[in-house]
Amino acid sequence: MKLEQLQYAHRFDNVSGSAIREIFKLIAKPGMISFAGGNPAKSALPDAVCAQIAKDVLEKDGKTILQYGATEGYAPLLESLHTYAEDALGCQLDCVLPTTGSTQAMDLLCKALINPGDVILVENPTFLGNMQCMRLYEANVVPVESDENGILIDKLEEAIIRHHPKILYTIPTFQNPTGKTLSADRRQPIAELAAKYGVVVAEDDPYRDLRYAGTALPSIKSYDKEGWVVFLGSFSKIISPGIRVGYMAGDPRILRKCTVGKQSSDVHTSNLTQAIVDQFLRQKLLPEHIRSICASYKEQLDTMLAELATFPEGTTYTHPEGGLFIWVELPAHLDALEMLNTCVARGVVYVPGTHFFAEGGHHNTLRLNFSNSTVEQIHKGMAIIREVIAEASK
Amino acid sequence: MKLEQLQYAHRFDNVSGSAIREIFKLIAKPGMISFAGGNPAKSALPDAVCAQIAKDVLEKDGKTILQYGATEGYAPLLESLHTYAEDALGCQLDCVLPTTGSTQAMDLLCKALINPGDVILVENPTFLGNMQCMRLYEANVVPVESDENGILIDKLEEAIIRHHPKILYTIPTFQNPTGKTLSADRRQPIAELAAKYGVVVAEDDPYRDLRYAGTALPSIKSYDKEGWVVFLGSFSKIISPGIRVGYMAGDPRILRKCTVGKQSSDVHTSNLTQAIVDQFLRQKLLPEHIRSICASYKEQLDTMLAELATFPEGTTYTHPEGGLFIWVELPAHLDALEMLNTCVARGVVYVPGTHFFAEGGHHNTLRLNFSNSTVEQIHKGMAIIREVIAEASK
Repeated sequence: MKLEQLQYAHRFDNVSGSAIREIFKLIAKPGMISFAGGNPAKSALPDAVCAQIAKDVLEKDGKTILQYGATEGYAPLLESLHTYAEDALGCQLDCVLPTTGSTQAMDLLCKALINPGDVILVENPTFLGNMQCMRLYEANVVPVESDENGILIDKLEEAIIRHHPKILYTIPTFQNPTGKTLSADRRQPIAELAAKYGVVVAEDDPYRDLRYAGTALPSIKSYDKEGWVVFLGSFSKIISPGIRVGYMAGDPRILRKCTVGKQSSDVHTSNLTQAIVDQFLRQKLLPEHIRSICASYKEQLDTMLAELATFPEGTTYTHPEGGLFIWVELPAHLDALEMLNTCVARGVVYVPGTHFFAEGGHHNTLRLNFSNSTVEQIHKGMAIIREVIAEASK
Repeated sequence: MKLEQLQYAHRFDNVSGSAIREIFKLIAKPGMISFAGGNPAKSALPDAVCAQIAKDVLEKDGKTILQYGATEGYAPLLESLHTYAEDALGCQLDCVLPTTGSTQAMDLLCKALINPGDVILVENPTFLGNMQCMRLYEANVVPVESDENGILIDKLEEAIIRHHPKILYTIPTFQNPTGKTLSADRRQPIAELAAKYGVVVAEDDPYRDLRYAGTALPSIKSYDKEGWVVFLGSFSKIISPGIRVGYMAGDPRILRKCTVGKQSSDVHTSNLTQAIVDQFLRQKLLPEHIRSICASYKEQLDTMLAELATFPEGTTYTHPEGGLFIWVELPAHLDALEMLNTCVARGVVYVPGTHFFAEGGHHNTLRLNFSNSTVEQIHKGMAIIREVIAEASK
């Protein structure tokens, strides 16, 4: 029998692969300016520190690190992560589970909870990578209306009553792709609605430490009394995405199901990369490292905003207080998906906004990342986009 | 609403967690002799070499290693792994995908292929970790009869005709848990049956390099003409399980689906651990390292076999030519599951054989691992088991 006749699983019927992962391959082209991806700046990646730490931990605890570990996590990291996460979230935590990036945390949460057809409520637009995850679990992904301050609480309650969702997925701080932050007064109501109706909140918060203005807001998790909120954390944006270490924090009953799921996903996250993160936390290297990253990212953000101010009338865009992304809405007649090829040919790449909408559309939108380009590259890349817009507007 | 009311996904209805992972926690107890797990010996873990390599690769290629990588794998490893795998399998390979342990390779293959109710044929007994994986995809796990030389080809064809399986899962070399090896004359027929009926063969072969007697046999993959065989490889037993690097090799169409599945599982395997494996391959460190491991493991195996020869009449056991496990069948009135608590209390742990059977039963069987204990520990641990058997036989 020919392999063409092989039937793949139904979960792939509506999934063809992440648009970002495909665009990502373009980034590797020499000279390409990338406003796509959510990559840290090269200068933000602590290679020398990691080299020293990797050597030290393998010399000191190599026999444990190289052996099978517990699915529940590398013991020293469990300790340092617990303290770190309680500080970060401003609340006591029952249980923390290190994961292979926070991507795996979302995957495990879906594995634990989602049957085909179950509803997951999402922001509109939302992170496309996790939408792919939801679709591979054959979830019914339903968007909820937002404004400048994040999800609208009355619309959320309506959607919960109507759809009986299993999960509400939210990125409350410097949202991907919009850069918007859920305002303080909407955080407690979300935790309360979750408990009232029995909805698990996946609070995905990888950007919270990258704040360039304003003050930190309480986590949704800090208002959680019954255990319905699961916090997804990441070290990808503040240490390194390439080492794949994230975590989930929440009720031990939910995390136990995720742990059993993880046993057959990858047994455990690499002990070596867990040990590296442990040393960053234990040696308290993060605060100074984050201060230094934020200083450059702020300059990059300001440069991109200044460039956007010169874009044609009818262009609107967000003014994020942190994170990695600006969300741009071009005049309605422009199509960011169509313009992408021309931009790539001239040396700049971004992600068309349509990919971030559960129901598509919104062809005049795009997501711009500023963390992975120097100030010079931002000037140059934005000039190219402006030029392509001008030609498309003729 | 109380969290007790939360409904988990149906895929967990018949899965309560890996028995091995629970037993594994016992191993950590100080002084415990472990014949459970499939852990390499402490002395087999190359901590000093890894410490130096980790430092070197982060100094030389740290900015790439710490950045997001491609789901398809870290470029240098893709190159060295391709050559390595072609040498190991004795055939040309179209495509190789690094994974977060070969556990993830099995998970991705199920993700790509299995709808609830689909049949997976397995050896009887088979590796319980991957049975848990299959059950979480709600596969119908159907055992096929084996003899001393592995799966019986006529029984396999009968089972294929009767059950229309999606996957045949086999561990051809030094099988887990039995230590048996699929004989040379059954390998080509399996590849041919797969192509005749359209069944994907998952050839899981993590122990092939740990051979202490006899000569290497051709892989099933080497007889594969149409692409129906997917090879699952691992570096857990020959470098380190704690770094979580395995791979799958096979037809690019199947591996493409697995790659899309991996995008939302963990985006990519840690670049750092991929770079470490790459250096082992590039610097050709494996042959000598494997020779040294095999020399000690052979002594440990022989010691355990000599101890088994003193077990009561009616005890039978396998005589593996390699790998990590001996399979023991005690006289029928004995129950290895029942005896386990007493053994643990006296300081030795193993895995009861019943866990490895898709349909349970076989309470008089157990799996013994010899790689993770010294010769002294093997003498001592086996004496305890012999004593507990004697008491239970009274």
